[in-house]
Amino acid sequence: MIHTTTLDIDSSGNFTVVNITDQVRDFVVSTGVAHGQVLVFYKHTTGAVLIAEHEAGIIADLQDTLERISPVSYEYLHHFKGLDSNGYAHVRSALLTVSVTIPILNSEMLLGSYQEILVIDDQTESAPRQVILQVIGE
Amino acid sequence: MIHTTTLDIDSSGNFTVVNITDQVRDFVVSTGVAHGQVLVFYKHTTGAVLIAEHEAGIIADLQDTLERISPVSYEYLHHFKGLDSNGYAHVRSALLTVSVTIPILNSEMLLGSYQEILVIDDQTESAPRQVILQVIGE
Amino acid sequence: MIHTTTLDIDSSGNFTVVNITDQVRDFVVSTGVAHGQVLVFYKHTTGAVLIAEHEAGIIADLQDTLERISPVSYEYLHHFKGLDSNGYAHVRSALLTVSVTIPILNSEMLLGSYQEILVIDDQTESAPRQVILQVIGE
Repeated sequence: MIHTTTLDIDSSGNFTVVNITDQVRDFVVSTGVAHGQVLVFYKHTTGAVLIAEHEAGIIADLQDTLERISPVSYEYLHHFKGLDSNGYAHVRSALLTVSVTIPILNSEMLLGSYQEILVIDDQTESAPRQVILQVIGE
Repeated sequence: MIHTTTLDIDSSGNFTVVNITDQVRDFVVSTGVAHGQVLVFYKHTTGAVLIAEHEAGIIADLQDTLERISPVSYEYLHHFKGLDSNGYAHVRSALLTVSVTIPILNSEMLLGSYQEILVIDDQTESAPRQVILQVIGE
Repeated sequence: MIHTTTLDIDSSGNFTVVNITDQVRDFVVSTGVAHGQVLVFYKHTTGAVLIAEHEAGIIADLQDTLERISPVSYEYLHHFKGLDSNGYAHVRSALLTVSVTIPILNSEMLLGSYQEILVIDDQTESAPRQVILQVIGE
Protein backbone atom coordinates (compact mmCIF):
# COMPACT_ATOMS: atom_id res chain seq x y z
CA MET A 1 0.00 0.00 0.00
CA ILE A 2 1.28 3.45 -0.92
CA HIS A 3 -0.29 6.71 0.20
CA THR A 4 0.80 10.20 -0.80
CA THR A 5 -0.27 13.63 0.36
CA THR A 6 0.94 17.22 0.19
CA LEU A 7 1.38 19.52 3.19
CA ASP A 8 1.15 23.24 2.59
CA ILE A 9 3.59 25.05 4.86
CA ASP A 10 2.90 28.49 6.25
CA SER A 11 6.26 30.26 6.25
CA SER A 12 7.73 33.73 6.09
CA GLY A 13 11.13 32.43 4.93
CA ASN A 14 14.40 33.62 6.51
CA PHE A 15 15.04 30.42 8.43
CA THR A 16 11.44 29.82 9.41
CA VAL A 17 11.28 26.45 11.18
CA VAL A 18 7.97 24.57 11.16
CA ASN A 19 7.43 21.45 13.26
CA ILE A 20 5.35 19.05 11.13
CA THR A 21 5.69 16.00 13.40
CA ASP A 22 2.02 15.96 14.39
CA GLN A 23 0.86 16.36 10.80
CA VAL A 24 3.10 13.49 9.66
CA ARG A 25 1.87 11.34 12.56
CA ASP A 26 -1.76 12.09 11.70
CA PHE A 27 -1.16 11.16 8.07
CA VAL A 28 0.56 7.90 9.03
CA VAL A 29 -2.41 6.93 11.22
CA SER A 30 -4.91 7.92 8.51
CA THR A 31 -3.31 5.53 6.00
CA GLY A 32 -3.88 2.49 8.21
CA VAL A 33 -0.33 1.32 7.51
CA ALA A 34 0.96 -0.53 10.58
CA HIS A 35 4.40 -1.54 9.34
CA GLY A 36 6.44 0.44 6.85
CA GLN A 37 7.98 3.85 6.43
CA VAL A 38 7.17 7.47 5.67
CA LEU A 39 9.15 9.61 3.25
CA VAL A 40 9.21 13.36 3.95
CA PHE A 41 10.28 15.32 0.86
CA TYR A 42 10.72 19.10 0.66
CA LYS A 43 9.82 20.38 -2.84
CA HIS A 44 12.05 23.47 -2.94
CA THR A 45 15.72 24.35 -3.40
CA THR A 46 16.04 26.96 -0.64
CA GLY A 47 15.17 24.95 2.43
CA ALA A 48 15.37 21.53 4.01
CA VAL A 49 13.73 18.82 6.06
CA LEU A 50 15.45 17.95 9.31
CA ILE A 51 15.09 15.40 12.12
CA ALA A 52 16.19 17.23 15.27
CA GLU A 53 15.18 18.36 18.74
CA HIS A 54 12.81 21.31 18.44
CA GLU A 55 14.36 23.61 21.02
CA ALA A 56 14.81 27.31 20.31
CA GLY A 57 18.47 27.31 21.33
CA ILE A 58 19.34 24.43 18.98
CA ILE A 59 17.56 26.14 16.08
CA ALA A 60 19.43 29.38 16.77
CA ASP A 61 22.74 27.50 17.08
CA LEU A 62 22.16 25.81 13.72
CA GLN A 63 21.29 29.12 12.08
CA ASP A 64 24.38 30.71 13.65
CA THR A 65 26.60 27.89 12.35
CA LEU A 66 25.12 28.09 8.85
CA GLU A 67 25.54 31.88 8.91
CA ARG A 68 29.26 31.39 9.56
CA ILE A 69 29.52 28.75 6.79
CA SER A 70 27.34 30.46 4.18
CA PRO A 71 26.43 33.99 5.30
CA VAL A 72 23.30 35.72 4.02
CA SER A 73 25.43 38.67 2.89
CA TYR A 74 28.12 37.38 0.56
CA GLU A 75 29.01 37.76 -3.11
CA TYR A 76 27.37 34.57 -4.36
CA LEU A 77 27.83 33.89 -8.07
CA HIS A 78 24.15 32.93 -8.17
CA HIS A 79 23.33 36.62 -7.64
CA PHE A 80 25.23 37.79 -10.72
CA LYS A 81 22.25 37.11 -12.99
CA GLY A 82 20.43 39.81 -11.05
CA LEU A 83 17.38 37.65 -10.39
CA ASP A 84 17.95 36.35 -6.89
CA SER A 85 19.68 37.16 -3.62
CA ASN A 86 19.24 33.72 -2.06
CA GLY A 87 22.62 32.13 -2.78
CA TYR A 88 23.08 31.30 0.92
CA ALA A 89 19.79 29.38 0.93
CA HIS A 90 20.82 27.15 -1.98
CA VAL A 91 24.14 26.32 -0.30
CA ARG A 92 22.53 25.60 3.08
CA SER A 93 19.88 23.39 1.47
CA ALA A 94 22.68 21.32 -0.08
CA LEU A 95 24.46 20.97 3.28
CA LEU A 96 21.22 19.82 4.92
CA THR A 97 18.86 17.59 2.88
CA VAL A 98 15.38 17.63 1.32
CA SER A 99 14.59 13.91 1.73
CA VAL A 100 14.23 11.93 4.97
CA THR A 101 12.66 8.51 5.60
CA ILE A 102 11.33 7.40 9.00
CA PRO A 103 10.45 3.80 9.93
CA ILE A 104 6.93 2.88 11.13
CA LEU A 105 6.09 -0.05 13.42
CA ASN A 106 2.73 -0.75 15.08
CA SER A 107 1.36 2.34 13.30
CA GLU A 108 3.88 4.59 15.07
CA MET A 109 6.94 6.36 13.75
CA LEU A 110 10.07 5.03 15.46
CA LEU A 111 11.38 8.46 16.39
CA GLY A 112 13.67 8.92 19.37
CA SER A 113 12.39 10.76 22.45
CA TYR A 114 13.70 14.13 21.29
CA GLN A 115 13.40 13.69 17.52
CA GLU A 116 10.94 15.96 15.74
CA ILE A 117 10.36 16.41 11.99
CA LEU A 118 11.17 20.00 11.09
CA VAL A 119 10.93 21.96 7.87
CA ILE A 120 13.35 24.85 7.40
CA ASP A 121 12.40 27.52 4.86
CA ASP A 122 15.32 29.82 4.20
CA GLN A 123 13.96 31.69 1.17
CA THR A 124 14.42 35.49 1.28
CA GLU A 125 10.69 36.11 1.59
CA SER A 126 7.38 34.43 2.21
CA ALA A 127 6.34 32.00 -0.52
CA PRO A 128 4.05 28.97 -0.79
CA ARG A 129 6.02 25.93 0.42
CA GLN A 130 5.07 22.26 0.06
CA VAL A 131 6.17 19.01 1.62
CA ILE A 132 5.29 15.61 0.14
CA LEU A 133 4.51 12.81 2.58
CA GLN A 134 4.50 9.26 1.29
CA VAL A 135 3.74 6.16 3.36
CA ILE A 136 4.75 2.72 2.06
CA GLY A 137 3.90 -0.42 3.98
CA GLU A 138 1.31 -2.96 4.94
CA MET B 1 7.64 -7.94 2.87
CA ILE B 2 8.80 -5.57 5.59
CA HIS B 3 11.19 -6.50 8.39
CA THR B 4 12.28 -4.25 11.25
CA THR B 5 14.84 -4.68 13.99
CA THR B 6 16.73 -2.55 16.51
CA LEU B 7 20.49 -2.51 16.96
CA ASP B 8 21.85 -1.52 20.34
CA ILE B 9 25.07 0.44 19.91
CA ASP B 10 27.89 0.29 22.42
CA SER B 11 29.30 3.81 22.54
CA SER B 12 31.17 6.12 24.85
CA GLY B 13 30.04 9.24 22.96
CA ASN B 14 32.48 12.01 21.98
CA PHE B 15 32.57 11.11 18.29
CA THR B 16 32.55 7.36 18.80
CA VAL B 17 32.30 5.73 15.36
CA VAL B 18 30.82 2.23 15.13
CA ASN B 19 30.94 0.21 11.92
CA ILE B 20 27.60 -1.62 11.65
CA THR B 21 28.02 -2.88 8.08
CA ASP B 22 28.27 -6.54 9.07
CA GLN B 23 25.26 -6.31 11.36
CA VAL B 24 23.18 -4.68 8.63
CA ARG B 25 24.34 -7.32 6.12
CA ASP B 26 23.44 -10.13 8.52
CA PHE B 27 19.98 -8.66 9.06
CA VAL B 28 19.41 -8.28 5.32
CA VAL B 29 20.31 -11.95 4.77
CA SER B 30 18.13 -13.07 7.69
CA THR B 31 15.03 -11.43 6.17
CA GLY B 32 15.27 -13.48 2.99
CA VAL B 33 14.62 -10.35 0.92
CA ALA B 34 16.50 -10.68 -2.37
CA HIS B 35 15.44 -7.43 -4.04
CA GLY B 36 14.65 -4.25 -2.16
CA GLN B 37 16.28 -1.80 0.18
CA VAL B 38 17.34 -1.30 3.78
CA LEU B 39 16.69 1.86 5.77
CA VAL B 40 19.19 2.69 8.53
CA PHE B 41 17.74 5.18 11.00
CA TYR B 42 19.56 6.67 14.01
CA LYS B 43 17.13 7.33 16.87
CA HIS B 44 18.96 10.21 18.57
CA THR B 45 19.58 13.93 18.04
CA THR B 46 23.30 14.04 18.89
CA GLY B 47 24.73 11.70 16.28
CA ALA B 48 24.35 10.45 12.74
CA VAL B 49 24.46 7.57 10.32
CA LEU B 50 27.03 7.85 7.56
CA ILE B 51 28.06 5.92 4.45
CA ALA B 52 31.83 6.38 4.16
CA GLU B 53 35.18 4.64 4.03
CA HIS B 54 36.07 3.37 7.51
CA GLU B 55 39.68 4.56 7.68
CA ALA B 56 41.04 6.17 10.85
CA GLY B 57 42.45 9.18 8.97
CA ILE B 58 39.12 9.95 7.28
CA ILE B 59 37.25 9.73 10.58
CA ALA B 60 39.78 12.08 12.22
CA ASP B 61 39.58 14.48 9.25
CA LEU B 62 35.79 14.59 9.50
CA GLN B 63 35.96 15.24 13.25
CA ASP B 64 38.57 17.96 12.66
CA THR B 65 36.35 19.62 10.04
CA LEU B 66 33.28 19.47 12.26
CA GLU B 67 35.32 20.86 15.16
CA ARG B 68 36.18 23.89 13.02
CA ILE B 69 32.53 24.31 11.92
CA SER B 70 30.88 23.65 15.28
CA PRO B 71 33.47 23.40 18.05
CA VAL B 72 32.79 21.45 21.22
CA SER B 73 33.66 24.55 23.28
CA TYR B 74 31.44 27.41 22.14
CA GLU B 75 28.67 29.49 23.66
CA TYR B 76 25.73 27.55 22.21
CA LEU B 77 22.33 28.99 23.04
CA HIS B 78 21.17 25.44 23.74
CA HIS B 79 23.36 25.52 26.86
CA PHE B 80 21.64 28.55 28.35
CA LYS B 81 18.92 26.40 29.91
CA GLY B 82 21.65 24.86 32.03
CA LEU B 83 20.65 21.29 31.18
CA ASP B 84 23.04 20.32 28.43
CA SER B 85 26.49 21.04 27.05
CA ASN B 86 26.01 19.20 23.74
CA GLY B 87 25.12 22.08 21.41
CA TYR B 88 27.90 21.07 19.01
CA ALA B 89 26.43 17.57 18.72
CA HIS B 90 22.98 18.85 17.72
CA VAL B 91 24.48 21.09 15.04
CA ARG B 92 26.73 18.34 13.67
CA SER B 93 23.83 15.87 13.57
CA ALA B 94 21.89 18.35 11.42
CA LEU B 95 24.84 18.78 9.03
CA LEU B 96 25.14 15.01 8.68
CA THR B 97 21.93 12.92 8.65
CA VAL B 98 20.09 10.29 10.70
CA SER B 99 18.43 8.43 7.80
CA VAL B 100 20.10 6.52 4.95
CA THR B 101 18.65 3.98 2.50
CA ILE B 102 20.77 1.37 0.69
CA PRO B 103 19.58 -0.70 -2.31
CA ILE B 104 19.59 -4.53 -2.18
CA LEU B 105 19.92 -6.82 -5.21
CA ASN B 106 20.45 -10.61 -5.16
CA SER B 107 20.31 -10.44 -1.35
CA GLU B 108 23.34 -8.12 -1.25
CA MET B 109 23.60 -4.42 -0.44
CA LEU B 110 24.85 -2.51 -3.48
CA LEU B 111 27.58 -0.70 -1.57
CA GLY B 112 30.69 0.53 -3.35
CA SER B 113 34.04 -1.14 -2.64
CA TYR B 114 34.96 1.32 0.08
CA GLN B 115 31.50 2.15 1.43
CA GLU B 116 30.77 1.12 5.00
CA ILE B 117 27.75 1.93 7.18
CA LEU B 118 28.92 3.93 10.18
CA VAL B 119 27.15 5.29 13.23
CA ILE B 120 28.60 8.41 14.84
CA ASP B 121 27.66 9.08 18.45
CA ASP B 122 28.73 12.57 19.47
CA GLN B 123 26.92 12.82 22.80
CA THR B 124 28.99 14.23 25.68
CA GLU B 125 29.01 10.91 27.52
CA SER B 126 28.18 7.25 27.19
CA ALA B 127 24.46 6.54 26.78
CA PRO B 128 22.33 3.74 25.31
CA ARG B 129 22.10 4.32 21.54
CA GLN B 130 19.81 2.58 19.06
CA VAL B 131 19.64 2.21 15.31
CA ILE B 132 16.53 0.97 13.50
CA LEU B 133 17.04 -1.28 10.48
CA GLN B 134 14.14 -1.82 8.13
CA VAL B 135 14.21 -4.02 5.03
CA ILE B 136 11.50 -3.60 2.37
CA GLY B 137 11.41 -5.84 -0.67
CA GLU B 138 10.53 -9.18 -2.14
CA MET C 1 7.20 -4.12 -7.85
CA ILE C 2 10.87 -3.29 -7.49
CA HIS C 3 13.14 -2.30 -10.36
CA THR C 4 16.87 -1.61 -10.15
CA THR C 5 19.37 -0.31 -12.67
CA THR C 6 22.87 1.15 -12.72
CA LEU C 7 23.84 4.43 -14.37
CA ASP C 8 27.43 4.82 -15.52
CA ILE C 9 28.55 8.41 -14.99
CA ASP C 10 31.03 10.12 -17.28
CA SER C 11 33.13 12.31 -15.01
CA SER C 12 36.56 13.89 -14.84
CA GLY C 13 36.38 14.30 -11.03
CA ASN C 14 37.33 17.56 -9.31
CA PHE C 15 33.76 18.62 -8.52
CA THR C 16 32.28 17.43 -11.81
CA VAL C 17 28.51 17.88 -11.59
CA VAL C 18 26.31 15.66 -13.78
CA ASN C 19 22.57 16.26 -14.11
CA ILE C 20 20.90 12.83 -14.20
CA THR C 21 17.30 14.03 -13.88
CA ASP C 22 16.31 12.97 -17.39
CA GLN C 23 17.90 9.55 -16.99
CA VAL C 24 16.10 8.98 -13.68
CA ARG C 25 12.82 10.15 -15.23
CA ASP C 26 13.28 7.80 -18.20
CA PHE C 27 13.95 4.89 -15.86
CA VAL C 28 10.89 5.68 -13.74
CA VAL C 29 8.69 5.70 -16.87
CA SER C 30 10.27 2.48 -18.16
CA THR C 31 9.34 0.60 -14.98
CA GLY C 32 5.62 1.29 -15.40
CA VAL C 33 5.40 2.22 -11.70
CA ALA C 34 2.71 4.89 -11.32
CA HIS C 35 2.79 5.35 -7.56
CA GLY C 36 5.89 4.88 -5.44
CA GLN C 37 9.37 6.25 -5.05
CA VAL C 38 12.82 6.19 -6.58
CA LEU C 39 16.02 5.80 -4.59
CA VAL C 40 19.16 7.40 -6.05
CA PHE C 41 22.31 5.94 -4.48
CA TYR C 42 25.89 7.01 -5.24
CA LYS C 43 28.29 4.05 -4.96
CA HIS C 44 31.46 5.94 -4.04
CA THR C 45 33.01 7.67 -1.01
CA THR C 46 34.34 10.78 -2.75
CA GLY C 47 31.17 12.31 -4.13
CA ALA C 48 27.48 12.78 -3.50
CA VAL C 49 23.97 12.89 -4.89
CA LEU C 50 22.17 16.21 -4.50
CA ILE C 51 18.71 17.62 -5.18
CA ALA C 52 19.28 21.26 -6.16
CA GLU C 53 18.78 23.87 -8.84
CA HIS C 54 21.22 23.21 -11.68
CA GLU C 55 22.53 26.74 -12.20
CA ALA C 56 26.24 27.37 -12.75
CA GLY C 57 26.38 30.07 -10.06
CA ILE C 58 24.84 27.82 -7.41
CA ILE C 59 27.25 24.99 -8.24
CA ALA C 60 30.21 27.39 -8.00
CA ASP C 61 28.88 28.82 -4.72
CA LEU C 62 28.58 25.32 -3.24
CA GLN C 63 32.10 24.43 -4.36
CA ASP C 64 33.39 27.73 -2.91
CA THR C 65 31.68 27.01 0.42
CA LEU C 66 33.02 23.46 0.58
CA GLU C 67 36.49 24.75 -0.31
CA ARG C 68 36.34 27.04 2.73
CA ILE C 69 35.08 24.20 4.96
CA SER C 70 37.34 21.43 3.66
CA PRO C 71 39.96 22.82 1.28
CA VAL C 72 41.55 20.64 -1.40
CA SER C 73 44.98 21.60 -0.07
CA TYR C 74 45.14 20.73 3.61
CA GLU C 75 47.05 18.28 5.79
CA TYR C 76 44.42 15.56 5.96
CA LEU C 77 45.33 12.59 8.13
CA HIS C 78 43.94 10.36 5.37
CA HIS C 79 46.97 11.36 3.26
CA PHE C 80 49.51 10.13 5.80
CA LYS C 81 49.34 6.58 4.45
CA GLY C 82 50.76 7.98 1.22
CA LEU C 83 48.06 6.36 -0.95
CA ASP C 84 45.59 9.16 -1.53
CA SER C 85 45.32 12.93 -1.71
CA ASN C 86 41.51 13.07 -1.63
CA GLY C 87 40.86 13.79 2.05
CA TYR C 88 38.73 16.82 1.15
CA ALA C 89 36.48 14.63 -1.01
CA HIS C 90 35.75 12.17 1.81
CA VAL C 91 34.86 15.01 4.18
CA ARG C 92 32.64 16.75 1.63
CA SER C 93 30.85 13.50 0.78
CA ALA C 94 30.00 13.10 4.47
CA LEU C 95 28.65 16.66 4.69
CA LEU C 96 26.47 16.05 1.63
CA THR C 97 24.89 12.57 1.19
CA VAL C 98 25.00 9.53 -1.10
CA SER C 99 21.36 8.47 -0.74
CA VAL C 100 18.24 10.40 -1.77
CA THR C 101 14.64 9.21 -2.25
CA ILE C 102 12.09 11.02 -4.44
CA PRO C 103 8.33 10.35 -4.40
CA ILE C 104 6.48 9.29 -7.60
CA LEU C 105 2.80 9.95 -8.33
CA ASN C 106 0.99 9.41 -11.63
CA SER C 107 4.29 8.09 -13.05
CA GLU C 108 6.02 11.41 -12.39
CA MET C 109 8.61 12.37 -9.82
CA LEU C 110 7.22 15.01 -7.46
CA LEU C 111 10.16 17.36 -7.86
CA GLY C 112 9.74 21.09 -7.33
CA SER C 113 10.01 23.45 -10.31
CA TYR C 114 13.72 24.07 -9.79
CA GLN C 115 14.75 20.73 -8.33
CA GLU C 116 17.14 18.62 -10.39
CA ILE C 117 18.94 15.38 -9.45
CA LEU C 118 22.68 16.02 -9.55
CA VAL C 119 25.68 13.79 -9.03
CA ILE C 120 28.87 15.41 -7.72
CA ASP C 121 32.12 13.56 -8.33
CA ASP C 122 34.93 15.14 -6.33
CA GLN C 123 37.61 12.48 -6.82
CA THR C 124 41.07 13.83 -7.69
CA GLU C 125 40.94 12.35 -11.18
CA SER C 126 38.68 10.71 -13.72
CA ALA C 127 37.38 7.29 -12.67
CA PRO C 128 34.39 5.08 -13.49
CA ARG C 129 31.45 6.26 -11.34
CA GLN C 130 28.12 4.51 -10.83
CA VAL C 131 24.74 5.46 -9.47
CA ILE C 132 22.11 2.90 -8.50
CA LEU C 133 18.47 3.73 -9.27
CA GLN C 134 15.76 1.73 -7.58
CA VAL C 135 12.02 2.20 -8.09
CA ILE C 136 9.56 0.72 -5.58
CA GLY C 137 5.85 1.02 -6.09
CA GLU C 138 2.74 -0.20 -7.85
